[in-house]
Amino acid sequence: MIDKSLYQDYQIGFSDSYFNDDGYFFIFNENRELLLDDDGNLMESVDGFNPNFILFIGKYHSRDVFVVNVDGDDGFYDLKDVYDISHDTYHMASIDVLVNDWYISHKFCGRCGSKTQVDEKDMMLKCPSCGQVHYPRIAPAIIVAITKEDELLMAKHSYHNNIRYALIAGFVEPGETIEEAVHREVLEEVGIEIKNLKYQKSQSWPFPNSLMLAFTAEYKNGNIKVDGDEIIKAKWFKKDEISRYDSDISISDWLIENFINNH
Amino acid sequence: MIDKSLYQDYQIGFSDSYFNDDGYFFIFNENRELLLDDDGNLMESVDGFNPNFILFIGKYHSRDVFVVNVDGDDGFYDLKDVYDISHDTYHMASIDVLVNDWYISHKFCGRCGSKTQVDEKDMMLKCPSCGQVHYPRIAPAIIVAITKEDELLMAKHSYHNNIRYALIAGFVEPGETIEEAVHREVLEEVGIEIKNLKYQKSQSWPFPNSLMLAFTAEYKNGNIKVDGDEIIKAKWFKKDEISRYDSDISISDWLIENFINNH
Repeated sequence: MIDKSLYQDYQIGFSDSYFNDDGYFFIFNENRELLLDDDGNLMESVDGFNPNFILFIGKYHSRDVFVVNVDGDDGFYDLKDVYDISHDTYHMASIDVLVNDWYISHKFCGRCGSKTQVDEKDMMLKCPSCGQVHYPRIAPAIIVAITKEDELLMAKHSYHNNIRYALIAGFVEPGETIEEAVHREVLEEVGIEIKNLKYQKSQSWPFPNSLMLAFTAEYKNGNIKVDGDEIIKAKWFKKDEISRYDSDISISDWLIENFINNH
Repeated sequence: MIDKSLYQDYQIGFSDSYFNDDGYFFIFNENRELLLDDDGNLMESVDGFNPNFILFIGKYHSRDVFVVNVDGDDGFYDLKDVYDISHDTYHMASIDVLVNDWYISHKFCGRCGSKTQVDEKDMMLKCPSCGQVHYPRIAPAIIVAITKEDELLMAKHSYHNNIRYALIAGFVEPGETIEEAVHREVLEEVGIEIKNLKYQKSQSWPFPNSLMLAFTAEYKNGNIKVDGDEIIKAKWFKKDEISRYDSDISISDWLIENFINNH
């Protein structure tokens, strides 16, 4: 995973009317895919396109950054592929795609149905009728590496076709703390109790708009019990039995690597 | 602050059509205030009201819980006052108010403007036209207690009229980690750099829908510099100079208490 801060090089700004043709252009399609040229670089211009919208979202290394939305498929890459092509491009794109998503999904006010308007200063959509404001959405989620002596608990989810075993993870529910979310998810998914819960670090995870909060914990008691619906199987793995991911993009991979290095 | 888990006693469920007149009734008005009877207890019935909506949201100690929305002012309490009246009522109400807010603010699809529909199983509003789903929103935010030897940094915000100095806090921006959010907010608000950043604990903060992530940190370098706009003043306080809050409802108060106890 990327461990450097983007906000050192990036200065937030916002406008839907400013344009400068010497900017960084992050051109997305409806499927949240990013357009790159034949050399895997960002496009140098929006000439020849018919953008659905262009948003100025600040400056990266003092150069203007624009999120552009167009129709199309050809030459567009999934963000996980962008990570393999260029960590720097992925890093910036992982913010930009959230702006793209936010703008698309708040054209209308959820409270009264009126067309929203862009604020001229902040990244905010306002409703001219009822006054409701709409910010980009970030959904907090937890992920936890649970160990029992020299073994790590992993589970197979029904919604991940053909995917290998993964760590326990889930979204924080309204009203709970992140620690409560971990205990609840573990109990719901594999039926055990845990102890020595420790927060480790966090990651912005734009698939689609999560903030991943990573923990370690130890087995306390209970037998593994899965619901057979959301979770198909769960079991304890010794470090040699773990199949690693192909990519180190996620904080999940960092937690697994951490377990392997410490056991 | 409340430190016990609600989800041990609360089982999540959801329906907008189920009703049972022997439930817990959390009756809110448009201002997110809760109706209590003359003894400070929840209402025992919705008889005599003309609810805008009634939502079944699960079971608390095996008894059905309903979020009810009505018009009115008389007998309604701000949630901070509810905390002083009963920690247990506040604890449950702090979830329920988020459901109330979510239902009110997603009547229409933000993507296409159609009327949304409630899912029959999950707490989810769906758009029948474009398929967009709308979950309750939780906005992650950070708060940090920064120390320099035996002093604590506090700042006065322009949007808090007549309020005393407070800790540095702010929302996590799209694409950043929670640690990055702390460094950025501190630099933006008071112009200093920090070190030894340590996550402490978290709190659900329903004013209106935040998840507060609390940190401690130490001063590293730089001189205090405020913008005079969002932040009016900031300075270092010895423990005897700190005015405590009247209520211990917030994680902010816990951080301050923690500083006082350790210095």
